Amino acid sequence: MKIKLGDFVLLLSPDEKTFLLRIREKRVFGTHLGGINLEDAVGKKYGEVIYSSSGKPFILLEPTLEDRVMKVRRFTQIIYPKDAAIIIFKTGLRDGMRVIECGAGSGALTIALANAVAPTGRVYAYDRDEKFLKNAKKNVEEAGLSELVEFKLREVSEGFDEEDVDVVILDLPSPWEGIPAASRAIRGGGRIASISPTYNQVERTVESLEENGFVLIETVEVLLRHIRVSTGKTRPFDRMIGHTGFLTFGRKKVTI
Amino acid sequence: MKIKLGDFVLLLSPDEKTFLLRIREKRVFGTHLGGINLEDAVGKKYGEVIYSSSGKPFILLEPTLEDRVMKVRRFTQIIYPKDAAIIIFKTGLRDGMRVIECGAGSGALTIALANAVAPTGRVYAYDRDEKFLKNAKKNVEEAGLSELVEFKLREVSEGFDEEDVDVVILDLPSPWEGIPAASRAIRGGGRIASISPTYNQVERTVESLEENGFVLIETVEVLLRHIRVSTGKTRPFDRMIGHTGFLTFGRKKVTI
Amino acid sequence: MKIKLGDFVLLLSPDEKTFLLRIREKRVFGTHLGGINLEDAVGKKYGEVIYSSSGKPFILLEPTLEDRVMKVRRFTQIIYPKDAAIIIFKTGLRDGMRVIECGAGSGALTIALANAVAPTGRVYAYDRDEKFLKNAKKNVEEAGLSELVEFKLREVSEGFDEEDVDVVILDLPSPWEGIPAASRAIRGGGRIASISPTYNQVERTVESLEENGFVLIETVEVLLRHIRVSTGKTRPFDRMIGHTGFLTFGRKKVTI
Amino acid sequence: MKIKLGDFVLLLSPDEKTFLLRIREKRVFGTHLGGINLEDAVGKKYGEVIYSSSGKPFILLEPTLEDRVMKVRRFTQIIYPKDAAIIIFKTGLRDGMRVIECGAGSGALTIALANAVAPTGRVYAYDRDEKFLKNAKKNVEEAGLSELVEFKLREVSEGFDEEDVDVVILDLPSPWEGIPAASRAIRGGGRIASISPTYNQVERTVESLEENGFVLIETVEVLLRHIRVSTGKTRPFDRMIGHTGFLTFGRKKVTI
Repeated sequence: MKIKLGDFVLLLSPDEKTFLLRIREKRVFGTHLGGINLEDAVGKKYGEVIYSSSGKPFILLEPTLEDRVMKVRRFTQIIYPKDAAIIIFKTGLRDGMRVIECGAGSGALTIALANAVAPTGRVYAYDRDEKFLKNAKKNVEEAGLSELVEFKLREVSEGFDEEDVDVVILDLPSPWEGIPAASRAIRGGGRIASISPTYNQVERTVESLEENGFVLIETVEVLLRHIRVSTGKTRPFDRMIGHTGFLTFGRKKVTI
Repeated sequence: MKIKLGDFVLLLSPDEKTFLLRIREKRVFGTHLGGINLEDAVGKKYGEVIYSSSGKPFILLEPTLEDRVMKVRRFTQIIYPKDAAIIIFKTGLRDGMRVIECGAGSGALTIALANAVAPTGRVYAYDRDEKFLKNAKKNVEEAGLSELVEFKLREVSEGFDEEDVDVVILDLPSPWEGIPAASRAIRGGGRIASISPTYNQVERTVESLEENGFVLIETVEVLLRHIRVSTGKTRPFDRMIGHTGFLTFGRKKVTI
Repeated sequence: MKIKLGDFVLLLSPDEKTFLLRIREKRVFGTHLGGINLEDAVGKKYGEVIYSSSGKPFILLEPTLEDRVMKVRRFTQIIYPKDAAIIIFKTGLRDGMRVIECGAGSGALTIALANAVAPTGRVYAYDRDEKFLKNAKKNVEEAGLSELVEFKLREVSEGFDEEDVDVVILDLPSPWEGIPAASRAIRGGGRIASISPTYNQVERTVESLEENGFVLIETVEVLLRHIRVSTGKTRPFDRMIGHTGFLTFGRKKVTI
Repeated sequence: MKIKLGDFVLLLSPDEKTFLLRIREKRVFGTHLGGINLEDAVGKKYGEVIYSSSGKPFILLEPTLEDRVMKVRRFTQIIYPKDAAIIIFKTGLRDGMRVIECGAGSGALTIALANAVAPTGRVYAYDRDEKFLKNAKKNVEEAGLSELVEFKLREVSEGFDEEDVDVVILDLPSPWEGIPAASRAIRGGGRIASISPTYNQVERTVESLEENGFVLIETVEVLLRHIRVSTGKTRPFDRMIGHTGFLTFGRKKVTI
C-alpha cells in the first residue's frame, strides 16, 4: 500500500522527533534538520525513508491511534492515551457498539472511541461549546473517522437523544449533572465511565451513580512511567506525569 | 436482546462478587448466598435480577472484554487488563488488522486482540506448548471469538508463516529470540510490542529491536491504583499490584 | 561491645526471617528451624552467629530504629517507617528539640521521635486511651528511650500543657480538633505534621492550618516500592503497599 | 530566641517563594516584590514578619534540615530529601554514631547525616574531587555542623581510615568499588546504604554486598507525590519526580 496525496504520515526525524502531516503537492515542511519536500513521499511505503534538503533521513511512519489522539489541534486539555486505553478496555467497546461521549472537547477521545467501535458502531459526541465541537469535528475528519461520529451541540441538562446505548462516557466538570440522563440512555448491563481530576468530583460522581442504578462501581487512577533503556544504564525517567484524572466505572442495573 | 440458553452472563451477588457462567438447562449454580437456577435467566435482559434459593437478588450482567480476559481458565500467568489495554492502544489495533501473538499462554490477551481487530481482522496465536494452546483455544471459543483466531503450535525459533502483518506481540521469556522473525513478518511502519517482567529482559529486547530495524522504541510500566470512594472517607486502597511487566514498543523501518 | 543479659537482639534466621528478642537466662526461643538458647548470645558481638538446636546458624543483629518501630506490640495501626522517616526529616527534628505527639497509639512513632531528639530533647506523647498509653509506654521502655518521653492521658479537646515546642505531630481521626491547641503550643517558625488516610481529612486539616496561622503548608504521599534484585532477573516486587496516609506539613507564623 | 547578625533565615514571600539567607549588616536582598533590608530581622523572632521596600510582608522562618539540604550551593546532583530521610531512618543513625559517607558531592547528604548523629557522633565525608569537597565543607559550615564532620580528599580505591563505624553510605558511580573497604570499616551488625540511579548498578551492588558479608539486603525506591489541597478541588499535582535513585541497604555479618 503506497502513500498518496492526501494521506497522513508521521514523519520521524533522525533525532526521534515526530510530526503528523498530510501529504500535499508542492509543499515543503520546514524542520530543524532542513526542509522536507512532502511530495517525495508519494509512491513510498510506510517505513521507508525520504531526505531533507540537508540530506538527513526522515522515516515515513503510519500514524497510529495514539499519534492521532496526541496530535489533535486542541483548545482544551485532552485525554491521555493511558486513560483512553483503560476507558475503552474496561467499558468493553468493540465493533458495532453505540457510545455517547458527553464533553467531546477537542475530539481526542472521540477518535479513540470511533476507532474502537469501527466499522459498524457509532459515537454520539456531545458538547455545549460550538467552537470546541467544530474543532473536534475537524480532528475526527482528519483521522478519517467522520462516518462513525455524530456531533451534537447541547447542554448536558437537556439530556441525550439516544436510547439503549452500550456505553456512556462523561468528561464533564460536574459529571453528576449528566448521570441521570446517562442512566436513561444506557441499556441494561451497559457501562458508564467518567473522568475527573479531583477526588471531590469522584465522590459526588459515585454517589450519583449509586442513586441512579449503577452497580460494580469502581474508581482507579493510572500511572504511566517511562523507562530509559540503555545497555548498562537502564532506569526510570527522572520526570513523570503525576496525575491526569481519576476514572470511575459502573454498569447499569435494570430497575423495574 | 434477551438472554437465552448457551449465553454467558456475569452474575453479580448482592455483596459484589462476580461469577462468569454459561446459561444451561437444569443447572443450579451454588453460591455463598444460596443456589441459582440458571434457567431463570432465560428470557431476561442484561441488567435484570434473578433470585437465589434463599431469596437473594443477583444481577445478570453482560460479560465485558475485561471479564472475559480476567476469568479465563489458566495454566499460566495471564496478562493484566491495564497492560492489555495499553498494548492495544499503542499498537493501534483496529478492525481489519492482522496481528501475530507469540506466546499465547492461556489466551487472555488473545481474546483482547481478537476483540480489537473484529470483525474483519485476524489473530495468529503461536505457542510452543500443546496443552496451553488447547486451553487458549477453548477460552477464545467461549468468548465467541474463534473465527478471528488461528492457533499454531510452534517453537519461536521456527519463525512465523505470515507476511506483512500490522502488529506482532511477544510474550516470551526471551523476546529477542522472536524479534528477527517478527521483523521479517511485520510490514513497514507496523508495530511490535513485548511484555517482560525484568529490567534485564527489557535491556536485551531493546538492543535486539535496534539491531532489527525498529524505531521509536519506548518502554513503559503501567501502575493501576484503586481508589476506595466513600462519601467523607475517600482514599486509595491499602494494597496494590506493584509490578506486572514492562511494556516495550517499536515501529518497523524498511531497510532496502 | 558485647551482648549481655537484658540486651535486645534482632535474630536473623538462615532464610531471612527476623525476631526481636531480649536476651534472658535459661530461655529457649522456638523457631521453625529449631530452638535457640538465648544465653548463647551473651558475650558475643553483634554480627556474630549462634546455632539452633538443629544446628542452623542464626545471626545476632543490633535492632535498628526501623526494627524497633516495626516490632512494637500493637493495639492500633502503626506508622510505616517511610512515613515516620519523612515526618522527622521535614519537621527538622534533631537533638534537643521538644515535640508534642498527639495520638501516641502503640508508641511506634514515639520511639522514632525520641530517637530523633536524643539525647537532650523531649517528647510529650498524648493519648486519650489508657490501655494504648500503657502499651506505648512499655514499647518505648523496651527501646531504651523512656527518659526522653513524657506520657499524658488526655482528650485532645483539653489542649496541651507545653509552650514554645519546636514541633507538633498529629495522628488523630479529626486532626482539626487538635490544630488550635497545637498552634498555641508551637513557637514561631515551629513545624506541624499531620497524618491521615483520607482526602477528606486532608482537606479539613489544610483549612484548619490556614485558619490557625500556618504557612508553607504542603501535603504529600510517600510510595515505597521494593525491588527484587537478582543477577539477570531484577524487577520490582509484585505486590506493594498502595496507601498508608497523606502527610501534611506547615510552619507557624507569629500573629501579633 | 531572637534573630541576630550572622543567623540564617528562610524568608517566605507572600506568594510562597522561599529564600535561605544569612542576616548581615547593611545588606538589601532584592526580590520580585521589592528589596528586603536584612537588618530589619535583627531582634525579631522566627515566625515574625518584616516588610519589603514596597510594603509586602515577608515571614522570617527558621531553616529546617530540609531547607539546608535543598538550598546548598551545588556542583553535583544532590540527594532528594525523600531519599535522605529513608537512608537515615533505615540505617538507624542517631546521636553518637560514627558514619562514613563516600561521595560527599555538594554536602547535602553530609548535612543530613551530621544532623542525625549530633551532638556527639561523627561524619567522615570522603570525596575524590577537591573542588567538590571544598564546596561541601562550606555548605556544612553554613549549616553550623562543621564540628561533627571530617572531610577527606581520597580515591575510593585507597580505602577508609576508620574502623568499627556504625554506618557507611555510598554515593558513587561504582558502589562495588567501595564495598570491600566499607565491609572492613563497619562493625558487626552495622549498616550500609548505597544510592544509584540505574538497575544495573543495583545488581552489581547487591552481588558485591553478598560477597562481602552483608545480610538483610534490600533495595527500594521512594516515590513522593505532592497533593494539591484546595477545598472542593483536591487532587494530586500534575507533575512529579519519576525517579531519583534506588536505595540499597545491608547489615554486616561478622565472619570469623
